Amino acid sequence: MGEKRESTGFLIKQRAFLKLYLLTSIEKERWYGMQLLDELRESFKPFGFEPQHSEVYRALHDLLEDGILSRRKIKEEGSKYKEVAVYSIANKEEAKAYKKLVKADLDRCEQLLRKALKDNFS
Amino acid sequence: MGEKRESTGFLIKQRAFLKLYLLTSIEKERWYGMQLLDELRESFKPFGFEPQHSEVYRALHDLLEDGILSRRKIKEEGSKYKEVAVYSIANKEEAKAYKKLVKADLDRCEQLLRKALKDNFS
Repeated sequence: MGEKRESTGFLIKQRAFLKLYLLTSIEKERWYGMQLLDELRESFKPFGFEPQHSEVYRALHDLLEDGILSRRKIKEEGSKYKEVAVYSIANKEEAKAYKKLVKADLDRCEQLLRKALKDNFS
Repeated sequence: MGEKRESTGFLIKQRAFLKLYLLTSIEKERWYGMQLLDELRESFKPFGFEPQHSEVYRALHDLLEDGILSRRKIKEEGSKYKEVAVYSIANKEEAKAYKKLVKADLDRCEQLLRKALKDNFS
C-alpha cells in the first residue's frame, strides 16, 4: 500500500496516519481540490505535529495509485475555465480494509506507549 | 541529545524511546555488559516491535556522549582476564531532565493517537 521503507515495527508511519485521515475526509464529503489539506494540518497543530504538504501529497498519490481513490477534474464553481480536482472513494471495500489495518496499528501503538509510561514512570 | 534527523513532530523517535528504557534499566541496577539488551528486545516483541541491536547501541552511545552515562571495564566474575563493561548514571540531574522530556513527548503521542482513533473510528 505504498509503504516501502523497511520497518522494525516501532510506531505507525506518518504516511499511513495521513492516508487514514484522507480516506475519512473523502468518505464524509467529496473533496474539492486541496482546501481541506490546510484544515487537516491545522487540526494537528495543538499536538505539535505539522505534516509537510509534500508528505500529504504523497499519501494522496499512494491512495490513487492503489485504486482506492479516484480523481476527476470539474469546472470550478463560478468560473468558466478554471478546473479543480475532485477526489472520491473508488473502492469502498479496499478503503474499509485499509482503515481496519491502520486501526489495528493505532491500537498497538497506544499499547506500546502505555507500556513505556508504565515501565518508566510508575 | 543526539537526535539529528529533522522532525515534523509526528510521533516520538525510536532513539528517544530506547534511551528512556536504557536510563530506567541502568537506574535500577548496575549494567553489566549487554545482557539486558536482549531482555529489552524480548519485552517489546508482543507489541510487534523489534529494535535492531545497532539502534540500541546508538542510543547507548548517545547517552555516553552526552555525559549522562559512564562506562568502565571490570573483570568478569569468575574470570581472570575477561573484562565486561559496566554502565552507570554519570549525571543524575540530566538523566532526570531527559526522562521528563521524553515523558512529555509520550503523553503528547498518546493524545495524538487517541485523537486519530476518535476522528476516524467513532
